[in-house]
Amino acid sequence: MGGNTYGRFFRITTWGESHGKALGVVIDGCPPGIILSEKEINTELNLRKPKSDELSTSRKEDDRCEILSGVFEGKTLGTPISIIIYNKDVDSSSYEKIKGVFRPGHADYTYFKKYGLYDHRGGGRASGRETVARVAAGAVARKVLEKEIKGFELFSFTKDIGGMGISSIDQNSLKREDIIKDRLWCPDKRVSGQMAQLIVNAKSQGESVGGIVKIVVKNVPIGLGEPVFDKLEADLGKGLLSIGAIKGVEFGEGFNLSNLFGSESNDQMNKKGFVTNRAGGIVGGISNGENIVIRVAVKPIPSISNEQKTIDIKGNDCIIKIGGRHDPCAIPRINPVCEAMVAITILDHLLMHKSIGGLK
Amino acid sequence: MGGNTYGRFFRITTWGESHGKALGVVIDGCPPGIILSEKEINTELNLRKPKSDELSTSRKEDDRCEILSGVFEGKTLGTPISIIIYNKDVDSSSYEKIKGVFRPGHADYTYFKKYGLYDHRGGGRASGRETVARVAAGAVARKVLEKEIKGFELFSFTKDIGGMGISSIDQNSLKREDIIKDRLWCPDKRVSGQMAQLIVNAKSQGESVGGIVKIVVKNVPIGLGEPVFDKLEADLGKGLLSIGAIKGVEFGEGFNLSNLFGSESNDQMNKKGFVTNRAGGIVGGISNGENIVIRVAVKPIPSISNEQKTIDIKGNDCIIKIGGRHDPCAIPRINPVCEAMVAITILDHLLMHKSIGGLK
Amino acid sequence: MGGNTYGRFFRITTWGESHGKALGVVIDGCPPGIILSEKEINTELNLRKPKSDELSTSRKEDDRCEILSGVFEGKTLGTPISIIIYNKDVDSSSYEKIKGVFRPGHADYTYFKKYGLYDHRGGGRASGRETVARVAAGAVARKVLEKEIKGFELFSFTKDIGGMGISSIDQNSLKREDIIKDRLWCPDKRVSGQMAQLIVNAKSQGESVGGIVKIVVKNVPIGLGEPVFDKLEADLGKGLLSIGAIKGVEFGEGFNLSNLFGSESNDQMNKKGFVTNRAGGIVGGISNGENIVIRVAVKPIPSISNEQKTIDIKGNDCIIKIGGRHDPCAIPRINPVCEAMVAITILDHLLMHKSIGGLK
Amino acid sequence: MGGNTYGRFFRITTWGESHGKALGVVIDGCPPGIILSEKEINTELNLRKPKSDELSTSRKEDDRCEILSGVFEGKTLGTPISIIIYNKDVDSSSYEKIKGVFRPGHADYTYFKKYGLYDHRGGGRASGRETVARVAAGAVARKVLEKEIKGFELFSFTKDIGGMGISSIDQNSLKREDIIKDRLWCPDKRVSGQMAQLIVNAKSQGESVGGIVKIVVKNVPIGLGEPVFDKLEADLGKGLLSIGAIKGVEFGEGFNLSNLFGSESNDQMNKKGFVTNRAGGIVGGISNGENIVIRVAVKPIPSISNEQKTIDIKGNDCIIKIGGRHDPCAIPRINPVCEAMVAITILDHLLMHKSIGGLK
Repeated sequence: MGGNTYGRFFRITTWGESHGKALGVVIDGCPPGIILSEKEINTELNLRKPKSDELSTSRKEDDRCEILSGVFEGKTLGTPISIIIYNKDVDSSSYEKIKGVFRPGHADYTYFKKYGLYDHRGGGRASGRETVARVAAGAVARKVLEKEIKGFELFSFTKDIGGMGISSIDQNSLKREDIIKDRLWCPDKRVSGQMAQLIVNAKSQGESVGGIVKIVVKNVPIGLGEPVFDKLEADLGKGLLSIGAIKGVEFGEGFNLSNLFGSESNDQMNKKGFVTNRAGGIVGGISNGENIVIRVAVKPIPSISNEQKTIDIKGNDCIIKIGGRHDPCAIPRINPVCEAMVAITILDHLLMHKSIGGLK
Repeated sequence: MGGNTYGRFFRITTWGESHGKALGVVIDGCPPGIILSEKEINTELNLRKPKSDELSTSRKEDDRCEILSGVFEGKTLGTPISIIIYNKDVDSSSYEKIKGVFRPGHADYTYFKKYGLYDHRGGGRASGRETVARVAAGAVARKVLEKEIKGFELFSFTKDIGGMGISSIDQNSLKREDIIKDRLWCPDKRVSGQMAQLIVNAKSQGESVGGIVKIVVKNVPIGLGEPVFDKLEADLGKGLLSIGAIKGVEFGEGFNLSNLFGSESNDQMNKKGFVTNRAGGIVGGISNGENIVIRVAVKPIPSISNEQKTIDIKGNDCIIKIGGRHDPCAIPRINPVCEAMVAITILDHLLMHKSIGGLK
Repeated sequence: MGGNTYGRFFRITTWGESHGKALGVVIDGCPPGIILSEKEINTELNLRKPKSDELSTSRKEDDRCEILSGVFEGKTLGTPISIIIYNKDVDSSSYEKIKGVFRPGHADYTYFKKYGLYDHRGGGRASGRETVARVAAGAVARKVLEKEIKGFELFSFTKDIGGMGISSIDQNSLKREDIIKDRLWCPDKRVSGQMAQLIVNAKSQGESVGGIVKIVVKNVPIGLGEPVFDKLEADLGKGLLSIGAIKGVEFGEGFNLSNLFGSESNDQMNKKGFVTNRAGGIVGGISNGENIVIRVAVKPIPSISNEQKTIDIKGNDCIIKIGGRHDPCAIPRINPVCEAMVAITILDHLLMHKSIGGLK
Repeated sequence: MGGNTYGRFFRITTWGESHGKALGVVIDGCPPGIILSEKEINTELNLRKPKSDELSTSRKEDDRCEILSGVFEGKTLGTPISIIIYNKDVDSSSYEKIKGVFRPGHADYTYFKKYGLYDHRGGGRASGRETVARVAAGAVARKVLEKEIKGFELFSFTKDIGGMGISSIDQNSLKREDIIKDRLWCPDKRVSGQMAQLIVNAKSQGESVGGIVKIVVKNVPIGLGEPVFDKLEADLGKGLLSIGAIKGVEFGEGFNLSNLFGSESNDQMNKKGFVTNRAGGIVGGISNGENIVIRVAVKPIPSISNEQKTIDIKGNDCIIKIGGRHDPCAIPRINPVCEAMVAITILDHLLMHKSIGGLK
């Protein structure tokens, strides 16, 4: 089974280790006749690339993709689209020192226990670098969605970093092109500055921080989602929880619903549509035409330079101090990854719904 | 596709409408030679049944299952196990009055839009009654897990109802047999009483409430979970979010991780094992041998007797007051459903892991 | 995994043992709004039922189905359709004598070795009786196909029994309603009589016979089949080879293609269409609009009353003489089963093709 | 869906067009710890490569693979193995002349009708070149099988070309290393010479020929195959029928079973095992420990230099004469492809069987 395939109709299979030769994705089930170029995919990859500032790793990831198949004379053929991204600025030297020592919060220990061996260099397959292939696939999914759905919009923004957040924001006025101009993808400039300071402080203390990302999708057609197990929330939740750093997900009012009465939780309707959107655009597992609203919890990057207790491959107690080049916060590089998983999931459901004659 | 199948190795397919003749599940991939009886399944179904008190619907669901195939001379054959639960106390009369009117918070509207028609009686396939088949399948999964895993324990408890919750509890001392004795599955007697009062009050005001359920699994073998898309969190998250009333899920410290530093979030190790369990037993998508700890957000039951604004099938504005027989809170009847989805998911991953030679 | 699910979009899961309480099928992914009744399904089940003549088993299989879910007010809901067929005339007494003895040509030995136990009564899950659920599902698939495809026709006929066959026939003039009037589904009356005599003779000698069934599908839309692994031949082949008694399958000219030159094998075209149909309606794994033509090899029924050498569960040599009630030939009861698998496969591909916008 | 993934546990996804930049395969679910090198895979690719003689195309396919992921320090990691084979000697010039003209017997017409566009150069995705990725994956599967199964042997040989065949052969004495020394993979030297002459003659007449390949697998463990739809024959049949040139498949006695009595068809047993092997090693869809024996029908290569009638993309009548570089017979280059599909299928079932505790 392996677990490296996601989606059923728009189906992606990713591969590659952090310090291997390359990473990539094979996309199967992409509709034919879609205009697609490497340049468009690279634009999305750029959003995930480390920036040249103090908030990012100093690893330079060039991250230019190459399309190896499935596109002919600028259009998709309906055959598998194979996309490759070569690893260029690989420096495994800092990992030699900690070879055989399990880094706390990382998957070294569980991979070793599961498989009996692991690629210790940069986290191997468990590295956040794996997500570059997801973003490439997400760029393709976004392209198809924008063609198929009128007014389709999908964006994410940073709601919270290290406990510091934006209290309220008018979602309707947000545009992706504006959000991504902020280096932390935070739509409130003032809060963004405070968040940046918080990250810099954490880094200077040998620490890292996490946060909360909010994702919004507009103009999703009514009817996407398959009862009862492949509900739209269930599949979106799976897609987002498959991102290494994400440990929680909620839809609409989410956990806050546990504090409300039924009359406060239900979205009432009138002729003009829904009066509220506490459900986050999904009822009974099926999209209801309202904005899809999701929040995800992002854990702090586990690589920190402070001393930590751990064990080595033989079970001996060790102290580890992690060098190498690491982000002090997964946000905002994780934001386009979240968007990619949401785009892929929604396209998957769109194609699924079309198979039974929906959206004729 | 349809979406009525869950799991890949231990695969369940459920069917049935709330007011139809019956509901059921076909389980494929159950290992052979497992001792299994209807009685054992009925014991689990009883936990989901409405209790005869003021906290539950007055619908009497007898919920005795019949095993139609896959078991011979008391043991599983390795062939599909078909389990049926007949609907007995069906009263569709109260639904006649609201036929063609979309109940707020329910899936009437989205089903109608998706399929062009819907069974209005009791929510049809979107009813919470659908979960009876999950609990039957979960009982089988639990049976297999208890045979295959030494010391396996899986329980859930009510952490919060309508904003009232237990602040802290020693998880290690909890036993399922004790928890289920409380009528709200709350391990703190005093809080349980307050929760009950809160539910009764809400009901008397024509309202309903939600809450938070916590699920704990002990002694899960190290190594379950398939990188990168079929991470154990991703699949557990999907399984739980496929339950109608659940709108959020978090693992370990979950959303609270966004407030912590890396050193606080990482679970350090020494010779004896992990020092903490903020990850909730899963790192890199793979179980690490610690307790798996999950919290889910349960929304208030959408059926309330207070007046609500809505529209009918022709788009006209309406006022609806929902009669019929409804629970004022999905907790604790949803608790065994959560456990069932977790049991099925873990067994699915256990079989998957065995296929590559894990757990020889 | 289990293997009891077939199809991806129109997905059937069957269950039940030959001498268990019942057999059934759950159909997931059936489009909504299809008019469907038990009567229509029973009409197909009747074609598979043993006839009251010397060519059939004397087991009386009433085979009236009950629809338990997924149909409301006479139309499909888009939710799973659960169909049950109770076992009525079950007589397991003749199996008690041969309990623990592996019947040659039957799956007793392989099931026992695979699972460590088996239901010896009437072949359990490996019985031909299992196919009743396929025919029920096939009836639903046929219904959908007839609604979706103008001029859709699907029929099979008996080409050969025990080496005696029809040499040539004008396929275009055949109608299903005529074929099924013949008790052996042979469109040549004279040959049918000879086949019947051959079967009677074989039976009187304690023997059984096999044969060849030809299946024809007309007016299949161009474009069905997914390169490269889910080619239409590949999936049709799988569906047909999943029927217990079938040991070979060929498309169009099939094995005879090994004797032809390229110019004889290729189907040339002109403005009016294809000049020939040696490919059997499928090129590159995709339907080309011509008739789909398939032939399958059916082995002799393994249950014979002549003495055979075998071993018992402990490995001792035995002689077995099989009593019980058995058909002397799987044809023509297997014919509607072949049709069912073809109908399900073609509908599955039709829905798949629609998902990428084909057949708008 | 797309159809470019095969297998469920050992799962391969192939990609690439004949005249694109490269072709490749991603293998997911390969057990960890298997020693694997590019050299071993290249050895298998060499068997599929055109030979430098008059029986082969003059296209030079270098076909050296590169492993991009999933192998670390010479061993498989349990993560996806991505293998790439670059297209080197690509000459699309001969295709320019016939651009927009559908070649008879090729998939140009059906691809165009299905997708609305197609890569006309060398057949694009429908080219036999696609199978290079299958052979690479098959090499990996073979490696795993040889490690997991004692005495495992898998070979194929040419039984028939253009109607000329070997009448009988002692299968037990055959060894793969001997068979592949013959340039037509025919174990009878004299017949091989006659076949070669037949191919040369056909080519000189502007024609091509087909044939029959026989595949034998030895020492397959008892118990592989999942009732009822994923029978071992069903999956092997699907795998083989997914190869473009194959139009028929039969197991054991196959189509000849239609001429036999039950007593001749059944394989009787005694203490020492099965007395005969007419079933070809599979009963009830499950391997019985005997040799698995399969025959497949290979159609003549559709590219011939003789004139043929066809139409162009606008529907006009045309005459086509196909230039380019083509094999006059798909045999023996198709033989390692058949073996690859069989290896992958058997490994898939081996892993599946292990998941329920088989082969502990």
